[in-house]
Amino acid sequence: MPTSNLESYSTIAISIADEIAHIQLCRPQEMNSMITAFWTELPEAVRYIDEHALARVIVISSQGKHFSAGMDLSVFQNMSASFNGEPARRAEAFRRHVLKLQDAFNALEQVRMPVLVAVQGGVIGGAVDMISACDSRYCTQDAFFCIKETEIGMTADVGTLQRLPHLIAQGLVRELAYTGRNMMSQEAQSSGLVNHVYADQETMLRAVMKIAKTIAGHSPMAVAGCKEMINYTRDHNVADSLNYMATWQSGMLQMPDVMEAMSAGQQKRQPMFENLLPKTVD
Amino acid sequence: MPTSNLESYSTIAISIADEIAHIQLCRPQEMNSMITAFWTELPEAVRYIDEHALARVIVISSQGKHFSAGMDLSVFQNMSASFNGEPARRAEAFRRHVLKLQDAFNALEQVRMPVLVAVQGGVIGGAVDMISACDSRYCTQDAFFCIKETEIGMTADVGTLQRLPHLIAQGLVRELAYTGRNMMSQEAQSSGLVNHVYADQETMLRAVMKIAKTIAGHSPMAVAGCKEMINYTRDHNVADSLNYMATWQSGMLQMPDVMEAMSAGQQKRQPMFENLLPKTVD
Amino acid sequence: MPTSNLESYSTIAISIADEIAHIQLCRPQEMNSMITAFWTELPEAVRYIDEHALARVIVISSQGKHFSAGMDLSVFQNMSASFNGEPARRAEAFRRHVLKLQDAFNALEQVRMPVLVAVQGGVIGGAVDMISACDSRYCTQDAFFCIKETEIGMTADVGTLQRLPHLIAQGLVRELAYTGRNMMSQEAQSSGLVNHVYADQETMLRAVMKIAKTIAGHSPMAVAGCKEMINYTRDHNVADSLNYMATWQSGMLQMPDVMEAMSAGQQKRQPMFENLLPKTVD
Amino acid sequence: MPTSNLESYSTIAISIADEIAHIQLCRPQEMNSMITAFWTELPEAVRYIDEHALARVIVISSQGKHFSAGMDLSVFQNMSASFNGEPARRAEAFRRHVLKLQDAFNALEQVRMPVLVAVQGGVIGGAVDMISACDSRYCTQDAFFCIKETEIGMTADVGTLQRLPHLIAQGLVRELAYTGRNMMSQEAQSSGLVNHVYADQETMLRAVMKIAKTIAGHSPMAVAGCKEMINYTRDHNVADSLNYMATWQSGMLQMPDVMEAMSAGQQKRQPMFENLLPKTVD
Amino acid sequence: MPTSNLESYSTIAISIADEIAHIQLCRPQEMNSMITAFWTELPEAVRYIDEHALARVIVISSQGKHFSAGMDLSVFQNMSASFNGEPARRAEAFRRHVLKLQDAFNALEQVRMPVLVAVQGGVIGGAVDMISACDSRYCTQDAFFCIKETEIGMTADVGTLQRLPHLIAQGLVRELAYTGRNMMSQEAQSSGLVNHVYADQETMLRAVMKIAKTIAGHSPMAVAGCKEMINYTRDHNVADSLNYMATWQSGMLQMPDVMEAMSAGQQKRQPMFENLLPKTVD
Amino acid sequence: MPTSNLESYSTIAISIADEIAHIQLCRPQEMNSMITAFWTELPEAVRYIDEHALARVIVISSQGKHFSAGMDLSVFQNMSASFNGEPARRAEAFRRHVLKLQDAFNALEQVRMPVLVAVQGGVIGGAVDMISACDSRYCTQDAFFCIKETEIGMTADVGTLQRLPHLIAQGLVRELAYTGRNMMSQEAQSSGLVNHVYADQETMLRAVMKIAKTIAGHSPMAVAGCKEMINYTRDHNVADSLNYMATWQSGMLQMPDVMEAMSAGQQKRQPMFENLLPKTVD
Repeated sequence: MPTSNLESYSTIAISIADEIAHIQLCRPQEMNSMITAFWTELPEAVRYIDEHALARVIVISSQGKHFSAGMDLSVFQNMSASFNGEPARRAEAFRRHVLKLQDAFNALEQVRMPVLVAVQGGVIGGAVDMISACDSRYCTQDAFFCIKETEIGMTADVGTLQRLPHLIAQGLVRELAYTGRNMMSQEAQSSGLVNHVYADQETMLRAVMKIAKTIAGHSPMAVAGCKEMINYTRDHNVADSLNYMATWQSGMLQMPDVMEAMSAGQQKRQPMFENLLPKTVD
Repeated sequence: MPTSNLESYSTIAISIADEIAHIQLCRPQEMNSMITAFWTELPEAVRYIDEHALARVIVISSQGKHFSAGMDLSVFQNMSASFNGEPARRAEAFRRHVLKLQDAFNALEQVRMPVLVAVQGGVIGGAVDMISACDSRYCTQDAFFCIKETEIGMTADVGTLQRLPHLIAQGLVRELAYTGRNMMSQEAQSSGLVNHVYADQETMLRAVMKIAKTIAGHSPMAVAGCKEMINYTRDHNVADSLNYMATWQSGMLQMPDVMEAMSAGQQKRQPMFENLLPKTVD
Repeated sequence: MPTSNLESYSTIAISIADEIAHIQLCRPQEMNSMITAFWTELPEAVRYIDEHALARVIVISSQGKHFSAGMDLSVFQNMSASFNGEPARRAEAFRRHVLKLQDAFNALEQVRMPVLVAVQGGVIGGAVDMISACDSRYCTQDAFFCIKETEIGMTADVGTLQRLPHLIAQGLVRELAYTGRNMMSQEAQSSGLVNHVYADQETMLRAVMKIAKTIAGHSPMAVAGCKEMINYTRDHNVADSLNYMATWQSGMLQMPDVMEAMSAGQQKRQPMFENLLPKTVD
Repeated sequence: MPTSNLESYSTIAISIADEIAHIQLCRPQEMNSMITAFWTELPEAVRYIDEHALARVIVISSQGKHFSAGMDLSVFQNMSASFNGEPARRAEAFRRHVLKLQDAFNALEQVRMPVLVAVQGGVIGGAVDMISACDSRYCTQDAFFCIKETEIGMTADVGTLQRLPHLIAQGLVRELAYTGRNMMSQEAQSSGLVNHVYADQETMLRAVMKIAKTIAGHSPMAVAGCKEMINYTRDHNVADSLNYMATWQSGMLQMPDVMEAMSAGQQKRQPMFENLLPKTVD
Repeated sequence: MPTSNLESYSTIAISIADEIAHIQLCRPQEMNSMITAFWTELPEAVRYIDEHALARVIVISSQGKHFSAGMDLSVFQNMSASFNGEPARRAEAFRRHVLKLQDAFNALEQVRMPVLVAVQGGVIGGAVDMISACDSRYCTQDAFFCIKETEIGMTADVGTLQRLPHLIAQGLVRELAYTGRNMMSQEAQSSGLVNHVYADQETMLRAVMKIAKTIAGHSPMAVAGCKEMINYTRDHNVADSLNYMATWQSGMLQMPDVMEAMSAGQQKRQPMFENLLPKTVD
Repeated sequence: MPTSNLESYSTIAISIADEIAHIQLCRPQEMNSMITAFWTELPEAVRYIDEHALARVIVISSQGKHFSAGMDLSVFQNMSASFNGEPARRAEAFRRHVLKLQDAFNALEQVRMPVLVAVQGGVIGGAVDMISACDSRYCTQDAFFCIKETEIGMTADVGTLQRLPHLIAQGLVRELAYTGRNMMSQEAQSSGLVNHVYADQETMLRAVMKIAKTIAGHSPMAVAGCKEMINYTRDHNVADSLNYMATWQSGMLQMPDVMEAMSAGQQKRQPMFENLLPKTVD
């Protein structure tokens, strides 16, 4: 059974039910800081779910008081320790190291299903890079967001500066990045970073699961098409994006899902859509 | 007289006065659903107005309780009926069909004059694609917006997913597209989709016509230049857009309009600007 | 001493202290209108500060009741006077003239340090182009913003239409550009144009200087990296921007700043970072 | 019968046989100069052939000693005559006029079937713009090519400078454009502008028709896919082009054509492929 | 020892000596047709060599009379067999299948070291896609090249149409793609597809190995930088490419290699450069 | 008299006659190696000529047996000497240093008039970067070209790798860059790098001056438009380039030059065109 692979992780806990995969950061006592294992486990898990079409939505949350403290100190220490040897080759190796870290969060936007993230408490440093790569963000009243990297003498390099300017006002991104100040939940909502603020984590998870359930009830082809198009249009001009849409539809829009949706509507029942095909069937 | 062409449409009613063309969706009893004729009439009308320089602003509104229910069921039925024959050729034909539907709304952003749209009640499916291609949006308190396509098993393909991410926060676009939920007028305003919410349609139309009148009083060259530049900058980087601006000005900025504006200012009167040239004069 | 160059300007007054350069528009009696000298002095000053690494943040404000009335009438008159001679060569010269004016504000986004702008009263015409090129904007309650160019018969051509659509909702940009109406401080904040509204100029400057001080306390390499990346990502797709980030880090992320930040943290003291290198050391 | 529309043109003669449409410039006595009618007739004809899927290849040649002398003097005279009135509006109208002329040749690259052009004698001015928009070029020994526009005081503006740099070495394009000198057939071949040089027009047409026949014998879906992809890759980076290819294939690669090709191969007979669908069947 | 992984392949044989990895297609009796295993083994091998920095150049050649007959018939048969089930999901799966095939050749341009390919006899269908992704191409007199896909009713979809137009004249690419005709070695050289034509395979391999040896003698950092830049500039404009170059150099240009090269020059000996770092050292 | 500035250079000698500026590298005894002064003098000179519209064509050649040995050893030594201090700030400074060197050759493609370059003997290292930025290249039989940087342990970083792939076949660029081998004049011509090979320098200069004279006899507006468009189209897609062309013409195509050209043609005399306007007239 393919899901067995998903049970052996040390930094995340995964449960799948009703076409919804719930991934929880599970090191609350260490504030879910991102240790070396995390950077491998997270992308592996979301890609595994996608490849085997194990779910139609992914919800990410975390255990404990804070969503995540970001990069663990141990990663910086390793990085620091490896700063020796011929400097050009080290620079080349370091570039590839950053590309590999970035790739962990690229996975969140590359998988075919939406990824919703629900956060509480501190969302710090690398955690901001991470949630910026999710489809939609939700938070509790006590949540706060911090581009911590500036404060520790470096430029955030795993996605915050590349994705946040697509999510909230540029003038605000710059202030947050240059000052490293905390942004509170209210400002996160009014700026558009999060879609909704909830009283507490339990309320939040109930609401986000309800959103996930609505998504899971739709045709996964229709939803995957939306995700592909919104990703595409962020990175291309409108004319190219419209052309890509039409070309996509030439293969991806077929009648069975539309027929099922219409029948279900007439019969006042929930439609039943086939899953996406696993990628591993070659 | 060229305007005569504009009187024979079945899905839209057009009146032109004081340099403002008012296009109304005129099938209120069918919730202004977009039947086959609509997809030809709308682009033909706006392009005709542009080619003959018949107005300096276009205002779009609709009759009845709802702005528009989106694509009419009959269009889906035709589409479904044509799903037969050799599948590659059908796919190629379908791609061109989507491109043609998209082109109906491309007309709204390609014409030289601003297009303002004022909506009430339901703005559903194809209607969201349509208003996303307009310059600015205004609504009544009872308005709601819905990316309906997901619910009927398909990915919206005539512009919503290509243009809405340029208008409102990405996290919200994704939630709306994946869930197909209604967005109410208040959220439409706070998210930036509409510029203003009005108590009712009459109040709204009065206000929007006043905005239109202000625009119509300005030099149509200056206004057309603004539209061209804002369209261009959405699709190009800032350096290219600045260069395009300077190159555009080399031909388009001439002294007569500036002189007239300054004289009028000194004389405390309304300036009188020439119309754009019709495109048909070759 | 290199700063002496900065003392001879007629349209701006510059003071530098605590790594913060404060540039004030200093022609309050003429509403800080942008005369010919201004277009040379502003870019020269900010580039000089950057080249000699004289500060880590630049704050721009102005003296008097209004931030700036925009382009001075005399510039239009000169422009009008030069509209003669062979028209093709004049068009080519005019294109270069616009490019040169634009370049004055390009300087604000090209320098390595953040540029914060704090405005009160009228921010009109060319002043909107100017603040759009700054990193973050702050205003007083009595501030208002106006794309005046449309009203005087021309299309704004020194950056507003290229940068404002990256800062606030597109539907709003278009309304402001087509109508030339005033936008008040409250709308400027809710739309994301300004980060914060303050009761009066004194309060505003105190707050903005505090923000500037926080920025100046950080590693200038980290901050300059943030600015480069946010500029870059605005103009490139996410994949290119992530790759650029990783390549940048291969040279720019070194251990000394991180070490100093960590030591200071452990020792509960302010970290002390080296300045950027002046560009003039070849 | 739809082809009847194609028989009424004054500047081109069209014959269609064996899935090959042959378009001849038919004003040899005036050196096939491009009069006003030509700019409408050529795009109308090629688009009509495409829309009705009347052929699988288009071959363009001309009657008389020279392929074409380019823009007719009368068009310049009309243009000159219209240079009056308010200069900004005239500039805007002129921009649209150039876009419309360009569109005549855009048609050659937008139609779904390849367009081969076979030229003899002079290929001058606008004729170079025209052949640059064709898929492949062939010429006789006596052919010569000339970017004439520079010599008459203007910059070529209907496609030469946008397409020729994609066809031959940049250093050569620049010399030809700046000097306006003739390029002879041998240099046209060694530079890659033409695929082959033939002794005389009769030999050339026989050879080009043979190439056309080979193309017409292939699946028109496969050939149209090649054209779409080569056009696309010229204007996009390789990663985008590969992704577009895969998305295209999801609809356009189906089994019937492959099966027919394989069966025909085994049975040692010519395969028989269905035509593309006409675009007019909605 | 890491190289052991490279010894178990069924479709390619690999030997590494003197910093040169030689990969041979080793199914000569089946004309080195590309069976399913090939599409996994080739990218795995070249990426393994890159990750472990096992060589500084890769040379690809093949055993037998022909370089490769392209895609094996069995792959088409599998593909055909899987054409069933719900058509939208099948289309989505097929798109991902094409992306995966393409990725096999993307590996050739993504690895840090140059890939030279030396071909003889037939280079057919998928083999043209493959060699187009290599850095440089060399062939024997009896070599010929054929875009076979068109003849079997489909559009080439694993890279030929995306990369060949960057290698040879567009008019020729189109003729080759539309007709599927053979291009002989002489035309391959004059068109720039291959760098050199040799009398026979033995002569060719001797010459190509000599080129490889020269490359392997240079600093692998300098060579990898060249490859990265030429790839980058193909896909970006010149201004972006120059900026990327400068940013790259900030980390990658260090003094040790330059010093060693200069010392070696003065001492009239071969310079000795360190290898690139393996990617697996994290 | 503005030309006086041009007489004080130590690395180049400039003469202007008949609208042609001839710039000669004038340190033949040091093989015209590029010392620090050269990197300032060359761009300053070509920009000065452009700003004052002192010529309509620039021809670059050199004195002595070799065109140029490229970067002078002293520049490397300075660079090496400055490799100390905090490494991040040094990396940032070095990036700016490379950008500044690149800018010296950017000047060649940014000036409004064509730049022809005529080379003999060795064209080595930085000299290849330089000639790649010129409009057209011409050489003597004894000329050879060498991307020397690879051999001295670094990646060429002032333009070769960004511009050469636009000039000659990619497979050849890569071989030249990876091996650092010499390319002889014959291969330079057949690959399209140079437009023509001449027996010796005297013959070459006579021929190139004749080409320059032809260009100088044309309308400088027409020629400058060609240069702008060919530069632009290299960096943009065809649709954008056509639109830019049309927008450019709206200001830049006026009747006087066309009229003069036509009159001169009818009167069988040389046309007399006005110069471009100097940029310094503001």
